[in-house]
Amino acid sequence: MKKSTTLSDIAIELNMTAATVSRALSDHPEISKSTKEKVKETAKKLNYNPNRIASSLRSGKTNVVGVLIPTAENAFFGSVIHGITKLASKHGYSVLIHECDEDYELEVKGIQTFIGARVDGIIVSLSRNTLNYDHFLEVQKRNIPLVFFDRVPDDLSFPTVVLDAYRGAYQATQHLIDQGYKRIAHIAGPLFIKTFNDRYKGYVAALQANKIPLDHTLMHIGDLSIESGREATRQFLQLAEPPDAIFATEDFTALGVLKELKVNKIRIPEQFGVLGFCNDVFSEHTTPSISTIDQQTYLMGRESFIMLNNMIENGSVKTSEIVKTVIDPILIVRESSMKSGNPA
Amino acid sequence: MKKSTTLSDIAIELNMTAATVSRALSDHPEISKSTKEKVKETAKKLNYNPNRIASSLRSGKTNVVGVLIPTAENAFFGSVIHGITKLASKHGYSVLIHECDEDYELEVKGIQTFIGARVDGIIVSLSRNTLNYDHFLEVQKRNIPLVFFDRVPDDLSFPTVVLDAYRGAYQATQHLIDQGYKRIAHIAGPLFIKTFNDRYKGYVAALQANKIPLDHTLMHIGDLSIESGREATRQFLQLAEPPDAIFATEDFTALGVLKELKVNKIRIPEQFGVLGFCNDVFSEHTTPSISTIDQQTYLMGRESFIMLNNMIENGSVKTSEIVKTVIDPILIVRESSMKSGNPA
Repeated sequence: MKKSTTLSDIAIELNMTAATVSRALSDHPEISKSTKEKVKETAKKLNYNPNRIASSLRSGKTNVVGVLIPTAENAFFGSVIHGITKLASKHGYSVLIHECDEDYELEVKGIQTFIGARVDGIIVSLSRNTLNYDHFLEVQKRNIPLVFFDRVPDDLSFPTVVLDAYRGAYQATQHLIDQGYKRIAHIAGPLFIKTFNDRYKGYVAALQANKIPLDHTLMHIGDLSIESGREATRQFLQLAEPPDAIFATEDFTALGVLKELKVNKIRIPEQFGVLGFCNDVFSEHTTPSISTIDQQTYLMGRESFIMLNNMIENGSVKTSEIVKTVIDPILIVRESSMKSGNPA
Repeated sequence: MKKSTTLSDIAIELNMTAATVSRALSDHPEISKSTKEKVKETAKKLNYNPNRIASSLRSGKTNVVGVLIPTAENAFFGSVIHGITKLASKHGYSVLIHECDEDYELEVKGIQTFIGARVDGIIVSLSRNTLNYDHFLEVQKRNIPLVFFDRVPDDLSFPTVVLDAYRGAYQATQHLIDQGYKRIAHIAGPLFIKTFNDRYKGYVAALQANKIPLDHTLMHIGDLSIESGREATRQFLQLAEPPDAIFATEDFTALGVLKELKVNKIRIPEQFGVLGFCNDVFSEHTTPSISTIDQQTYLMGRESFIMLNNMIENGSVKTSEIVKTVIDPILIVRESSMKSGNPA
């Protein structure tokens, strides 16, 4: 099948150098009129798209940025992409997205595809199982600007945009304490991922600050699903001293908690408080609605693009300039935690 | 900033033709040993990625397909993309996604970006306001395979993958009739978009088949939002003869109906039936849960890729081969329409 034509195609067809073709197309004075005509004729014949490639030659830019996400089946990443695309298009950039399906191999392939497409910069959130970062070091070696958001590597010198997950979890736990709940359990996510670890730490810190002793029977590690929320709740309810509130590391887990409590006819929020994390679309619409932490996803997308754009414009990816943007979490109080009737 | 190197860059550096560079890199017998060494040295110096470009030269393929979606802020498109990516990566393709933000200009730009990235094929769902199709005709002219899904142009000769929305809406309406509801209203979407028009037609056809006279006071055109569901419900409840059921053209609208009925203390499903369309993530988790039509989004993504892959492999986009894949809708009966207690 015929692909879009490049300078090389025209050069091969006319047995000229690509440099001559490029000069002829840009009306360089050193190129004869007849050569220019021949090149332009061939360019037309081969269905060559001069605007894009000519301007890319001039600026050395494609005006395309690539965004690598772990999964497209998640409202969080959709909303971040929306924030990136909105701002990028105002700056004249196209955004190409690559979904890795939480798979390391696909993540590596995505980076290769972006390099092949000669993107001007790359924005990444890590897949769940990524522990080797060579593909990102390759990007750095090629001097292509790279920004990480949300799921970021712990120990590489790249600019990052992250939510202050620790603070969000601290606020969430403090709110449950303020509402009068006495035994607050936590359902965590995979703790080798920084953001879930930070949420766990924020929970622990809030308990300590309130001189509430840590009880290891009130801690469960789940897999970010409705089912793991249900399973954890079933186990907690078996305890000699069951909890009276659960802070879940994300909203699907919190939804599982809600469902299991309802099956057990436990009244929310009177007898039991529930709080999630992420402010996923559905959490506002359940009965009762779920209190949660909003991550300002749209802002996270905007900030990621602003950081990348600065790097592209300064033409530099020096490690001395590593910056980190921290997004503030917002506590959203809804029905599932309003025991005192007072949101504060 | 330095970009990834092309054959042209090496040709310019050495003042050779791109054809010579290409032959040298693939060890062509007609090229001298010294030239080969010079080319390979320069390729290394310029940080040239030989595997990808060499294999792309051999096959004329990049093994990248582009997917153009109206919005990333929608679970429907996320799930279709997931279906495409899963199958595409099994076939050795990378998938690049471009979000158009329901904007015609961004849609055109997305197509240009895909052409610039030399993708092997393109899968598209139209933006809400697209009425001019020149950018797609340009794709066709370049012999790049193109498949539309869900929101497809009515009158162009492209292969398409669509849900049988008419049938889904017919099933939905018939189910409400079977449950004993007598006055069934419809909240439609923008009717110049084929899928919303088909849903409207399916509703009308089911009423006619059951000899229920069409009542124009029971029809409202909304904008696919919770608020438009609420607004339509408020208006319907003012009628001298209000409806006792609403078939909404998608789930957010149905959720708005649910919320407004609850405010008015109308019991669902006993006094009033509600049915949506799309099977969005949240619809299972509301109270009551929302009956809806599942669109088999994952399958839609797979079928779109299968169709595109056939076109790529056959190297042909002839209009005589236009095919259409129709996905079956699945009625999902939940609490919001179970008046008789019998799902049938």
